[in-house]
Amino acid sequence: MSYLGVGVSPGNVPVYHGSNLKVIDRRVRLAELVLRCIICGLAILSAVLIGTDTQVREIFTIRKKAKFTDMKALVFLVIANGIAAAYSLVQVLRCVLSMIRGSVLFNKPLAWAIFSGDQVMAYLTLAAVAASAQSAVFAKAGQPELQWMKTCTFYGRFCNQVGEGVASTVLVCLSMVVLSAISAFSLFRLYGDGKVKSSGGW
Amino acid sequence: MSYLGVGVSPGNVPVYHGSNLKVIDRRVRLAELVLRCIICGLAILSAVLIGTDTQVREIFTIRKKAKFTDMKALVFLVIANGIAAAYSLVQVLRCVLSMIRGSVLFNKPLAWAIFSGDQVMAYLTLAAVAASAQSAVFAKAGQPELQWMKTCTFYGRFCNQVGEGVASTVLVCLSMVVLSAISAFSLFRLYGDGKVKSSGGW
Repeated sequence: MSYLGVGVSPGNVPVYHGSNLKVIDRRVRLAELVLRCIICGLAILSAVLIGTDTQVREIFTIRKKAKFTDMKALVFLVIANGIAAAYSLVQVLRCVLSMIRGSVLFNKPLAWAIFSGDQVMAYLTLAAVAASAQSAVFAKAGQPELQWMKTCTFYGRFCNQVGEGVASTVLVCLSMVVLSAISAFSLFRLYGDGKVKSSGGW
Repeated sequence: MSYLGVGVSPGNVPVYHGSNLKVIDRRVRLAELVLRCIICGLAILSAVLIGTDTQVREIFTIRKKAKFTDMKALVFLVIANGIAAAYSLVQVLRCVLSMIRGSVLFNKPLAWAIFSGDQVMAYLTLAAVAASAQSAVFAKAGQPELQWMKTCTFYGRFCNQVGEGVASTVLVCLSMVVLSAISAFSLFRLYGDGKVKSSGGW
């Protein structure tokens, strides 16, 4: 993997010339930390909102209870949020540690690990959001062609709380997408060619 | 956006030292071209498979017809595949053109456009796959808690063809994920720091 010979291993602390780079680096790292904190908080909120959501309705003598385990997409959503929260917590600790240490660039294996993790998390949360949004549409609007009836007219409060959980996960997903772009930037700039002679562009 | 001053605008053709880089660059571009061709083919296949899928069943005198427009997730899947196919076709032309020209690196605005496009396509196809997979699970297994009955026992052939279309879109999605990593690499290495002194890592 020695692509261009500008890798940064733990023993080789990079030396920077130019304060402009340092300022941008600090901003990128701050944005990363803030986003990871937001993801951690929102993912926990979302998992709790959906995981604790139940509603009991009675029709005559029949007692019916709605819970998130009735729908596999919601179970997937809770699990995905749990994983996203745990992952973000670990990453927040890593960010804080690297800020305290004051190291500017990661080494390549670590950058690869962070990039891969962020990519997986972005795709995982998006898949969970899409699947649960599809289920929510069926529950809200039904599917008359298939005789699937609306269930949200019956379990109104339950559906609203699920909706809040899904909305919260949408924010988690968007933050993960931005973060995965940031970690791609942090990784692939390590492969930048210092030998390119031109200096135009933006 | 003049981050590190190593941007490559159309007028500034980069000068490379080392044949190793050229070989890897050629391989990356070849992999990109092959992946884009595969995506284009599979996306068209998938859109045709689902778009032309119909099944008519008769119960006594009642005539029932299943088509992909009965389920919004399948309409979304066909549209997403159509967009992916058109986008990939444009990108294939761009790849072939850049190969004929023999230009080694893109300019930054083009690299940003390709990166953004690939990201959007990867997330779009994943969302379409997740939503239609969720619908397929409901259609195949039903949801007894909500009195949503299985429909694939009735429309067997229709469901099988949809399954083939979804499987094809899964391959499109996986290829898009790999491509979006390649385009992230192509973009962010332009921001690589030529002034980093260390040369360890992998």
